[in-house]
Amino acid sequence: MGSYVTRKPATPVPQSIDDIGSHTATQFSDDLGIMCSLVLEMAGLVEKRLAEVVSALSKGDLKQAKHVAQSDDKVDVLELRVDAECTKILALHQPVARDLRLVTTALKMIADLERIGDEAQKIARQVAIIERGCVQKDILQRVEALGNKVAGMLHLALDSFTRLENVSVKMHRQDQVIDDECQAVMSTLLSEMSEHPGEIQELLSVIWCVRALERIGDHAKNISEYTVYLLAGKDIRHTRYSQISGK
Amino acid sequence: MGSYVTRKPATPVPQSIDDIGSHTATQFSDDLGIMCSLVLEMAGLVEKRLAEVVSALSKGDLKQAKHVAQSDDKVDVLELRVDAECTKILALHQPVARDLRLVTTALKMIADLERIGDEAQKIARQVAIIERGCVQKDILQRVEALGNKVAGMLHLALDSFTRLENVSVKMHRQDQVIDDECQAVMSTLLSEMSEHPGEIQELLSVIWCVRALERIGDHAKNISEYTVYLLAGKDIRHTRYSQISGK
Repeated sequence: MGSYVTRKPATPVPQSIDDIGSHTATQFSDDLGIMCSLVLEMAGLVEKRLAEVVSALSKGDLKQAKHVAQSDDKVDVLELRVDAECTKILALHQPVARDLRLVTTALKMIADLERIGDEAQKIARQVAIIERGCVQKDILQRVEALGNKVAGMLHLALDSFTRLENVSVKMHRQDQVIDDECQAVMSTLLSEMSEHPGEIQELLSVIWCVRALERIGDHAKNISEYTVYLLAGKDIRHTRYSQISGK
Repeated sequence: MGSYVTRKPATPVPQSIDDIGSHTATQFSDDLGIMCSLVLEMAGLVEKRLAEVVSALSKGDLKQAKHVAQSDDKVDVLELRVDAECTKILALHQPVARDLRLVTTALKMIADLERIGDEAQKIARQVAIIERGCVQKDILQRVEALGNKVAGMLHLALDSFTRLENVSVKMHRQDQVIDDECQAVMSTLLSEMSEHPGEIQELLSVIWCVRALERIGDHAKNISEYTVYLLAGKDIRHTRYSQISGK
């Protein structure tokens, strides 16, 4: 099987991942389409979980937190389904060039999406502990703002995959902003712990949430890097910001 | 290209991953061999890092800790090399059956190995902070023992991959032991924090180390699960212990 480029020379640049699967070989096209749909379904589910848990954390909504904490199974099932679909495509259709990159990108993306789901679940488990204590409202508001920024970063990464856009420079910048903000909140939490030793467990739970959000930001950055690889065949993981941005 | 089984019907069960690459197609065999060597080189490097950081933590050896904190580049370079090698094999040789599973297993394993390297680096960064304070010796000894158990778990997982053995039941049990021990140490650390608010930053650094070790255990478990998939084509991720052990 050839790549998209060799099959459709008149329009060499696909506008979205839907176009990559537009082959004359119907079964191959169908299978790539199914794989992409499943990846996007998993991505949508993980995005929803993150939004729900940030909302639950900021409102102290124990019911919603419990819902997120108990609902990771669907994400896991989708991960296994995409994985099986990718292996099937590799075995049956032997894709090359961009099609092959799409399959290996999907394999990597689902591992990051699954971990984002796990991190959302970890945050959800902390909500009940945090609610028990008297953590200052402004700290929780800062964590909420952080959560919304991370959710925005994930949305941008997933959008870049769907639209086949290179947003790596933007993502690196956003990741830096998030890391700095995490450090700042962490520093406030450390001071709070020293001043209020009776609240240590609750404050530690907030720290777990901040760490989980920081990690979700890292996973979102990974996803945007896979998209660059999918687009250009260039692996920019472990590359410094100055090299990516040319600054 | 056929799988090992179709190529060598007289000895259908390979004894180690070296045997999987024994094909009549020399280039294919060579490429699989290179890929496996690189994976094992990366695994060896990551195991060494973990041993070094556990030793640095227990001895308060700042020089060794600094060495681990600054030496993740080699792991990253190997990750990118294996990744490129896997993609080359998929594109050039279109492997199927067990050969295909070996390639996708390698792709997943290197992501876990890279993350173990990251976690070792995170532990290394905490050593200087911990050394500054007066964290009780017996707590650090418990963390060291935990580190050695996790290192043993990683060794078992990597060994199972090299020897093509299913050690999933043993790994699940060990992972449970490690998770329980992490919880116990964490609980002690929480009490210490409440009693010694002046030592909070140092104790929090110990908590980061415990969390990192717990995660390394999870990654080791993932590696053993990939080996089961490689061996039997059965994906046991997200499967409960009772289903794996038949209990």
